[in-house]
Amino acid sequence: MTGDPVGTHRVLEPLGALPQAAERLDTDPAIRDDEVRVRVQRLNLDAASFRQLAEKHGGDGAAVRAEVLEIVSNRGKMHNPVTGSGGMLVGTVEEVGEGSPLGLAVGDRIATLVSLTLTPLAIEDDLASWDGLTEQVPADGYAILFGRSIAAKLPDDLPMPLALAVMDVCGAPALTERHVRRYDDPVVVVIGGAGKSGSLCLAAARRAGARRTLAVVPHRAEAELLEPTGLADQVLVCDARDPVALRDAVAAAGGPADLTIVCVDVPGCEGGAILATAVGGTVIFFSMATSFTAAALGAEGLAADVTMIVGNGYVPGHADLALDLVRTDAGVRGLFERRLADG
Amino acid sequence: MTGDPVGTHRVLEPLGALPQAAERLDTDPAIRDDEVRVRVQRLNLDAASFRQLAEKHGGDGAAVRAEVLEIVSNRGKMHNPVTGSGGMLVGTVEEVGEGSPLGLAVGDRIATLVSLTLTPLAIEDDLASWDGLTEQVPADGYAILFGRSIAAKLPDDLPMPLALAVMDVCGAPALTERHVRRYDDPVVVVIGGAGKSGSLCLAAARRAGARRTLAVVPHRAEAELLEPTGLADQVLVCDARDPVALRDAVAAAGGPADLTIVCVDVPGCEGGAILATAVGGTVIFFSMATSFTAAALGAEGLAADVTMIVGNGYVPGHADLALDLVRTDAGVRGLFERRLADG
Repeated sequence: MTGDPVGTHRVLEPLGALPQAAERLDTDPAIRDDEVRVRVQRLNLDAASFRQLAEKHGGDGAAVRAEVLEIVSNRGKMHNPVTGSGGMLVGTVEEVGEGSPLGLAVGDRIATLVSLTLTPLAIEDDLASWDGLTEQVPADGYAILFGRSIAAKLPDDLPMPLALAVMDVCGAPALTERHVRRYDDPVVVVIGGAGKSGSLCLAAARRAGARRTLAVVPHRAEAELLEPTGLADQVLVCDARDPVALRDAVAAAGGPADLTIVCVDVPGCEGGAILATAVGGTVIFFSMATSFTAAALGAEGLAADVTMIVGNGYVPGHADLALDLVRTDAGVRGLFERRLADG
Repeated sequence: MTGDPVGTHRVLEPLGALPQAAERLDTDPAIRDDEVRVRVQRLNLDAASFRQLAEKHGGDGAAVRAEVLEIVSNRGKMHNPVTGSGGMLVGTVEEVGEGSPLGLAVGDRIATLVSLTLTPLAIEDDLASWDGLTEQVPADGYAILFGRSIAAKLPDDLPMPLALAVMDVCGAPALTERHVRRYDDPVVVVIGGAGKSGSLCLAAARRAGARRTLAVVPHRAEAELLEPTGLADQVLVCDARDPVALRDAVAAAGGPADLTIVCVDVPGCEGGAILATAVGGTVIFFSMATSFTAAALGAEGLAADVTMIVGNGYVPGHADLALDLVRTDAGVRGLFERRLADG
């Protein structure tokens, strides 16, 4: 029997919901023709979810562990009901349905790139190896992937923490590359250029043919981190929440931008991103702090004919593209390794 | 002296803010080189703003009028501090700076297409002709347009209420036309096809070359309104908040869509719009009820390679395009006239 590609056949309640919106999923280990079962080795809890649990329990790791077990047991997925967020998992492919389109084989070591909030999950070891004090959760159990799930094989040549950190933000450089290619020799501005997704976007933009790359960072310390990497032609220290200051700084550095990419999770960057962008240009918002109405009404109020894109974390081939950037660009790799070392 | 094109020179506090974000604007009637002063005849308050004021004052029109006067006097603009919304105005051009790029001449009758939340405004008649009971506010006073403001000349051949209703939503059909032209013979789905912006989008899509247009409406009564107009090749009665139902209904009617346009102000339509759209397709969200995170995380969770666009209300030529659709398409005009008659 073939499943629904987006997994609605695994939804127990409310019926008709998508797995992410569902209260409870079916974790039957028997897979449908287009499903894959994965033996889980590790969960990476979403940072917001782990923080909420740790704060609620005042740092009591045993209580955090008990609540994670309770959530997974009740919901059939690791979907924090307070934060609404999940995380990702690492495991080994255990069984592949003959109709699965994911291209996986038994024994492949993979990370899931869709959220734990929509992934059927059963824990079988009571999380006995986890102290409840870190986002990284050693675990034994299994998870189910649907026909349209996304999983990436873990590379052999990169340390796992580095590979996971790269895959966590791999949608941004892939979408950046696609939009850079739509322009001839564009000027690309990356707001938050010293961050993980920002540095990957800078590298992707240059490789895709950007004529000039500008990075915007909030203070001098970030600029000093980014400048030696050479990822940006110029690094601008500017508060991206100040639209006029951002517009003027970008204009003075060779702008306006043909493509502006917002990679900082700070509210209030919509107006500046719009104003820094040329007529006919594009703004891609990857920040989850983006306000839809601020973007829509802001562009209208500024009479700005710019295309505004909701940053979609899924682009075919995104994991391979991002991993390749980290392999080949020492600047990006250095920034990632430094951020991993800083915790 | 030339102003800043987006009007920051008129911001009194906080300094450096854009006019929309400002607490208070400068209403000095003396214009800069690139500004235009308009003699105001009527304000059209945003529906949400008027409703909030009417409810607050329990239907006491005099109290509503007093509060509108107080807001305009304190802020130098009609920017409801509770709802954050404004409205538009109708007036006659009184003075045009020699460097104004808006193409207006003294005596032109115009409507502003940028929000009152960013338009310097002074009221000079104490709104004496207004009873405080309607969104339409007869007024005497003046307003200032900046270099990048948007104003449209009122057409002579259409009744003013019809022209204003069309101009209020004119960004949607213009952006629809642009994106339809990016595909060859696309299938276009309009969610909320019987509404004002939805019907204009259907007409614009067909004129721009859509192979097949599908309208989604929430109940049979809306379908019966829309079907006789012939604006859609097929009208689907479906709850757009039910992603699987919407996907299946669109698929059965000739989908998936190359372009899906969301025109209903109802939360929770993101997943359905994404699922109804083909790989490589585009979703344009015009609904102010759109959740940025629901769209971004929804597409990622569904492994949907679709381009998601924040509906920008400004596209050059948008008012002329929409007015022309109403002039030439009896179906659209009939729907608008019926909605205006229903109040």
